[in-house]
Amino acid sequence: MHKDRTEVLVESIKRFLRRGANKYLQNIVKKAHAADLSIVFREISLDNRCKLFNLIDDLEKKVVLFSELDETTFIEFIKLLELKDVVEVFGKMPADDAAELLNCLDEDYSTQILENMKKEDSQEVEHLMSYIEDTAGSIMVPDFIALKEDMQAQQVIEALQNEYLDVEMPFYIYVINEYGKLVGVISLRQLVVVQSKMPLKEFMATDIISVNTYTDQENVAKLVSRYDYLAIPVVDDDNCIVGIVTVDDVIDIISDVATEDMLKMAGVGEDYIETQTVLRGTKIRLPWLFTSFLGGVAAFFIIGGFQESLAKFTCLAAFIPVIMGMGGNIGIQSSTIVVRGIATGKINIRDLWSVVFKELLIGMILGVIYGVFIGIVAKLRFFSEPFSLALSFSVGLAVISSMSVAALVGALTPMLFKKMNIDPAVATGPFVTTSVDIVSVYCYFLIAKLLIGL
Amino acid sequence: MHKDRTEVLVESIKRFLRRGANKYLQNIVKKAHAADLSIVFREISLDNRCKLFNLIDDLEKKVVLFSELDETTFIEFIKLLELKDVVEVFGKMPADDAAELLNCLDEDYSTQILENMKKEDSQEVEHLMSYIEDTAGSIMVPDFIALKEDMQAQQVIEALQNEYLDVEMPFYIYVINEYGKLVGVISLRQLVVVQSKMPLKEFMATDIISVNTYTDQENVAKLVSRYDYLAIPVVDDDNCIVGIVTVDDVIDIISDVATEDMLKMAGVGEDYIETQTVLRGTKIRLPWLFTSFLGGVAAFFIIGGFQESLAKFTCLAAFIPVIMGMGGNIGIQSSTIVVRGIATGKINIRDLWSVVFKELLIGMILGVIYGVFIGIVAKLRFFSEPFSLALSFSVGLAVISSMSVAALVGALTPMLFKKMNIDPAVATGPFVTTSVDIVSVYCYFLIAKLLIGL
Repeated sequence: MHKDRTEVLVESIKRFLRRGANKYLQNIVKKAHAADLSIVFREISLDNRCKLFNLIDDLEKKVVLFSELDETTFIEFIKLLELKDVVEVFGKMPADDAAELLNCLDEDYSTQILENMKKEDSQEVEHLMSYIEDTAGSIMVPDFIALKEDMQAQQVIEALQNEYLDVEMPFYIYVINEYGKLVGVISLRQLVVVQSKMPLKEFMATDIISVNTYTDQENVAKLVSRYDYLAIPVVDDDNCIVGIVTVDDVIDIISDVATEDMLKMAGVGEDYIETQTVLRGTKIRLPWLFTSFLGGVAAFFIIGGFQESLAKFTCLAAFIPVIMGMGGNIGIQSSTIVVRGIATGKINIRDLWSVVFKELLIGMILGVIYGVFIGIVAKLRFFSEPFSLALSFSVGLAVISSMSVAALVGALTPMLFKKMNIDPAVATGPFVTTSVDIVSVYCYFLIAKLLIGL
Repeated sequence: MHKDRTEVLVESIKRFLRRGANKYLQNIVKKAHAADLSIVFREISLDNRCKLFNLIDDLEKKVVLFSELDETTFIEFIKLLELKDVVEVFGKMPADDAAELLNCLDEDYSTQILENMKKEDSQEVEHLMSYIEDTAGSIMVPDFIALKEDMQAQQVIEALQNEYLDVEMPFYIYVINEYGKLVGVISLRQLVVVQSKMPLKEFMATDIISVNTYTDQENVAKLVSRYDYLAIPVVDDDNCIVGIVTVDDVIDIISDVATEDMLKMAGVGEDYIETQTVLRGTKIRLPWLFTSFLGGVAAFFIIGGFQESLAKFTCLAAFIPVIMGMGGNIGIQSSTIVVRGIATGKINIRDLWSVVFKELLIGMILGVIYGVFIGIVAKLRFFSEPFSLALSFSVGLAVISSMSVAALVGALTPMLFKKMNIDPAVATGPFVTTSVDIVSVYCYFLIAKLLIGL
């Protein structure tokens, strides 16, 4: 249902742009949600983006549009706008979004924007930009409501109606004591339902979960998602509240973290986005494939060492793909299960040996099953040959060992990385497939040599 | 910071359990957040879970605990509780959580629970259970606020204070017309800041984005995340509001969908969770490996077809791993980028050919680079042999073709799946690695045969 909605919008806007029907465009732009416009922007030419942008009257809509655009579209597009327009939008933008966007621009340009903004706005943004990337400090918004614990419910409602009109998300009201320290929290809902004279301290919740400015954003997201919060307060070292991280940012973090993990597992580097140019894409992916290259060269020399056996039994070569493939695939299974299990908290690092042992056991069982299958294929194919039984045993045993080792390495690698405080996703994929390839090939030829007596 | 908090809790509770210090336990349980207790529950024995559970006084806390437990822990644990306790908790639980949990239990037991609940509660839950899994209908909560468009702001505030005290998340108030159709929405925040006499229809937003009961939950999550909503209304075919999906559920969906995609890509099946028993784990993973097995057998017969070439040049076998490995790895890169790109909306199915062409180009460039590397290795290793140049060209060209095909297949497969409305993650991983293995091996021997003139 929704898909059509956006698609219809894209089509209509494209048609009106071709026709130059500015009046219709203005009308359609007025009605459209900024998040939908951001999708339109991706689909139209740079010139048309500027044209469309200038047709937007509502500054608030421009603000949302800026933050919703993806990075590449945004950078290309913003360069074509007049500085004063850009500054106007940034002036109205929540400070966290402004800081994030300015961080993608080159420094000269972002300084120019900041210099032209109102002092109070730019200071707020620069303050956020000073926090380390991917910490709570860098993603918090400074517009929260913190009130003294003695205030009464009715006074708070009045304050909301008068002073706090432009707070982005006033769903929690944080309560501070006389020293400015965070001591409690109430929800807007409670405020509406308690008696009007009741002071905050009498109905606030005091077991507040807060994060520090330097807490990693992934941990912030975990807390918000675990406790089903709409926002979490960020405090400095003195327990004074300095900002909040809102649930809409948490959603983006959770999605981004999952994307990063998948890309890292695949050996592409966490920052890979599809909109890269071919050259940059090549550059990012080149080094990750090097592990695989080295593994391949190692396997080459290992097989070279069994040259004589191969010369006598060329049919040995034909089983290399199945042995590598079965090992590689179960290795990916185990490592994906463990990496994602660690990320979602389903697997605890304290259970290292029980998890690894279980994966090993599964690898062995599956190894036996497929080892028997492949042994049968080998036996049937070379039925009349005198060596067929020894060959089928060699191949079967090679599959068992390959799959067991792969499951073991696939589970152990991310667990050990985690234990050493290395990101378990980062090198698991390439490392597992490469090491499994080498071990599989070596075991195979060794077993064959022993059994067939080459 | 937080990690310690939970860990300290786990340690203290374990210690007190060993000592049987019930008074301390009661105290600590009273102060702990239910989401933290759910982590404790994972770490302690079944008996202790019951003991701890019975020490919880607060019914609300039991409710949260039930919904936060992971499936396996929950199923094991609930069987040991008395039916009346279980029923009490379910009676207090939001209907969507109750429906989800009851769906994991075996039918006899869940029927027993439903039969013992209050009629009005159980009907609500059964109604939700009747929706198809993973649709908006199955995850919505029925406790939303929908008021007539003529009501005034002050009247609404009064209604909130009197009638709607137990609504889970009253952040939006939905506005309906005289026929009960959804016509607008206001936020709690607006309500607090407008003049008290103003009727809803004068300040409500009318461009409401809603979903249908049968909208897929992934699409629901996308909308909530795109528009930064705290909840989205669910309507029936008559545009009457029947429930809302809240942002806390959306967070879970986004995380679960990413997990499912990763597991599907790795060929493990979307429902795999680490807490499976060894036997079930084996059973789930067995069929996925069958593709890989078939591919291996196919490669075996292909290589068998080049038996004579191999007999003359056994060194050809030594390059099989590097050619398969390079192809396999770049195939995983391309397919992961495309699958995740489609899931996050970064890649649009309309751009099919430009995406596929770009991946192919990257595959070819990387293929040339690594092809040259491997050609050099081959040349150096067999320097003095007369066939060394032809061999090094064969191997290099094989790597180029293997990597190009892999990038092409890796990008094309999920795009085509998506176009045919098949989940792009579901079969991509095993399909890509297997087909790449077969094609690589075939191309390699064909090229070698032609160039070396075997």
